[in-house]
Amino acid sequence: MFESAEIEHRIDKDEFNKQVPLLREALLDIQYDLKERADFPVLILIHGFDGAGRGETMNLINEWLDPRLIRTVAFDAPNDEARARPWMWRYWNELPSKGRFGMFFGSYYSDTLFDRVYGKSDWDAFDLKIQDIQRFEHMLAQDGALIIKFWFHLSQVKQKKRLKLLEKDPATSWRVTKTDWEHYERYSLIRKFGEHMIRLTNTADAPWVIVDGEDANFRSLTVGNTILTALRNRLKQVHAPAEPLTNDAPPFLAPIDNKFILDALTLDQPTTKEEYKSKIEKLQGRLHRLTRHPRFAEHALVLAFEGNDAAGKGGSIRRITQALDARRYNVVPVAAPTEEEREKPWLWRFWRHLPGKGRVTIFDRTWYGRVLVERVEGFAKEADWMRAYYEINDFEHQLSENGIIVIKFWLAISNEEQLERFNLREKTGFKRFKITEEDWRNREKWDQYRLAVSDMVDRTSTTRIPWVLVEANNKYYARLKILETVCNTLEACLHA
Amino acid sequence: MFESAEIEHRIDKDEFNKQVPLLREALLDIQYDLKERADFPVLILIHGFDGAGRGETMNLINEWLDPRLIRTVAFDAPNDEARARPWMWRYWNELPSKGRFGMFFGSYYSDTLFDRVYGKSDWDAFDLKIQDIQRFEHMLAQDGALIIKFWFHLSQVKQKKRLKLLEKDPATSWRVTKTDWEHYERYSLIRKFGEHMIRLTNTADAPWVIVDGEDANFRSLTVGNTILTALRNRLKQVHAPAEPLTNDAPPFLAPIDNKFILDALTLDQPTTKEEYKSKIEKLQGRLHRLTRHPRFAEHALVLAFEGNDAAGKGGSIRRITQALDARRYNVVPVAAPTEEEREKPWLWRFWRHLPGKGRVTIFDRTWYGRVLVERVEGFAKEADWMRAYYEINDFEHQLSENGIIVIKFWLAISNEEQLERFNLREKTGFKRFKITEEDWRNREKWDQYRLAVSDMVDRTSTTRIPWVLVEANNKYYARLKILETVCNTLEACLHA
Repeated sequence: MFESAEIEHRIDKDEFNKQVPLLREALLDIQYDLKERADFPVLILIHGFDGAGRGETMNLINEWLDPRLIRTVAFDAPNDEARARPWMWRYWNELPSKGRFGMFFGSYYSDTLFDRVYGKSDWDAFDLKIQDIQRFEHMLAQDGALIIKFWFHLSQVKQKKRLKLLEKDPATSWRVTKTDWEHYERYSLIRKFGEHMIRLTNTADAPWVIVDGEDANFRSLTVGNTILTALRNRLKQVHAPAEPLTNDAPPFLAPIDNKFILDALTLDQPTTKEEYKSKIEKLQGRLHRLTRHPRFAEHALVLAFEGNDAAGKGGSIRRITQALDARRYNVVPVAAPTEEEREKPWLWRFWRHLPGKGRVTIFDRTWYGRVLVERVEGFAKEADWMRAYYEINDFEHQLSENGIIVIKFWLAISNEEQLERFNLREKTGFKRFKITEEDWRNREKWDQYRLAVSDMVDRTSTTRIPWVLVEANNKYYARLKILETVCNTLEACLHA
Repeated sequence: MFESAEIEHRIDKDEFNKQVPLLREALLDIQYDLKERADFPVLILIHGFDGAGRGETMNLINEWLDPRLIRTVAFDAPNDEARARPWMWRYWNELPSKGRFGMFFGSYYSDTLFDRVYGKSDWDAFDLKIQDIQRFEHMLAQDGALIIKFWFHLSQVKQKKRLKLLEKDPATSWRVTKTDWEHYERYSLIRKFGEHMIRLTNTADAPWVIVDGEDANFRSLTVGNTILTALRNRLKQVHAPAEPLTNDAPPFLAPIDNKFILDALTLDQPTTKEEYKSKIEKLQGRLHRLTRHPRFAEHALVLAFEGNDAAGKGGSIRRITQALDARRYNVVPVAAPTEEEREKPWLWRFWRHLPGKGRVTIFDRTWYGRVLVERVEGFAKEADWMRAYYEINDFEHQLSENGIIVIKFWLAISNEEQLERFNLREKTGFKRFKITEEDWRNREKWDQYRLAVSDMVDRTSTTRIPWVLVEANNKYYARLKILETVCNTLEACLHA
């Protein structure tokens, strides 16, 4: 893995000085091209051995390129916000926008590697984290990101020489810290586990670039040329006449008997107002006590609400929040993404709202919009919403692995019931805001949505996180079923 | 203060049911007006005694209005991110955007009141926090925010009755917590200190609305009507023919001898390259050690860079960051505000970047843009940039009070030196990105900027946070002076 990086590469001063001005100019030009077009982000990861020039490279990139278009993030130990969430959360948060550079110093690779080096993880845990990384980078790459990963290399002998040299000079001795020597002591472990990690993450989407770190001139030109070439190739590709991103996979067909999962539901349920009144507060009390259970502090709750327009999502959500401590929950209404959100990978705007330990986040519409409205309206390309099923399952899996309890509801009403509710809303002054032109337009696409919902349920209902289909023509029944489901699920998790 | 709230207000059910539909419709209409116009935010604060209907009111507002346009934030104990920053930081972060509602449950008033009630603050500390609040709300109001503060009241007898009633019913007993009874025990303290706090923050900008909390119908209608009337009045005002927001204060005049503070500087300084080389790394080492000093972990450092175009801000900043641990600093390049930033009070985009304890944030251009480019180019109204001097001093004061060391540099070059640098930049390929049409246009306004800089220095240079004017025709001299100033200031603070 590191062979080529140990054969003493060197560039002399004259050659360096000749090449640099041209390189810098080209880099700036291409950086501005990227900014102008703003169709994908560039993520640069800086890793490798201490003393191999990682810090200098960070400074170099900020000097050679326009630093105002680069987001440089050096990750330290996670703070308590980050510790309370899935480990990839803080990297999601710092992703660069389209048209910009993001440079990560000490990224998810450092967590993964040093946990292993210091014995905090075993081989299995190490490999699981590596798999998280593979999926993350694959998702980014599919989303268009250009990922450039540098590993700056030094042999152990060279590392010692370099650290000693810096330490001897009083003007530079401050650059060598205790950690550097600690890592030096562990050189062979870092090398061994590093090699394993690099091998498994050397994917076609995001290959590693191993750079001999000894000679500053060689190192700097390598970095500059790598970035330049990678960007040039990418921009050339994207310049090519836009081919529609289609999918080679077999198409999704509607069931030939035209019978859908939703048709199997009995949407009208007989619950009376009296029955509702007698049960609702008890269920709320039960829910309240469950969220105060000591073991809940080690978990978190994500409730995802989807359903037909006018199916009663808002009312159901309010019956839940009434039972919760206002300081412990958030309701996130999901509408069209903002400017900032459109510039990130599509799941970014859901990651940012994840609850910490002991907290509840309720999504009023969710990431499933990708395979519902975005599919039906054509806002997402076929290849993009097709891969979303996998990405969604992966997302929910990561939450679940982190102790977050995820429950997702589809509130189903019949076509006739919806029509009645729409008409009622238009007649009632203070309900008028709930009905828009768009709702009427969606109604016309009833069959397309039925197909999309059916595919969604089939492809994303898992044993651990199944879809809960709620018969919602009777709102009393729906609210009780939802509250009861939440209580039962929490109980099962907390008493497991 | 609470007299009118103890005379048993009551609205009967029929009257309530008659009024509510009209009120809800009117509220929704006006909420959509606000959204459409998006020229100011509405901040609603919910306070008062436990059991007086604060939680119910929060739910009510989310039910009567469109909750997708309301940002409801219930503040719990601050997390470690918040504890590492000035106490108002987390409230700044959650401010609503223009056109939207923000509802704070347990805002800065709760921190202030309960610290006093539980004896964590004395009268002086209590009053200091109240002053912070006064200035904060004044700033928000000047910025256009509509602030509606509710205090829900109950006498101690009524509070006991209400808590007992809830507790007796098994269906609602979960609503009464230990904290409620703890607060009940401290009723007279909460009342006494609450009254003091309310009195001092009952300003013309943001008066309190005291609401009798006993009868739910009375309470709900009062809240609804207050919000409706406040919004109606405000929207009427803003609808009136736009009068230019001018300033009654005496105008700023240029000194009649046309002699400015910057003219007193000797911009050319004799430092040679050799002198620079012999000193720079030692200074960097000193800076590095200072940021590793144990006492620095209790502080933070904010460096603010302003100066003429091409005065060498970027180069100076790099000489500083080279000496810092990449995980402990951030460079924030300040350009035109983003969509999100434009929708908040103007200082919001600087608050969000404040460093936590032991960290460094470097602003490449700063909040002083308000009294420089925004003044000269007319992007800010006169009244707005005039009040900015006060707001900036207050902002920096809050940082300083929280242990943040603030150092601000003005890098000054002569008109001739600037011309030379501009020409050089245009000729050098990889420097071309640093020079734009705008720079040339700014040059033509040299005299206006000279006046603005002079006013800025006069009005915002304080003993604690003075402007450091840097003679920058010679970049070696400038960089050494900056590094030395940072080191000396840190040393003085850490060894004080």
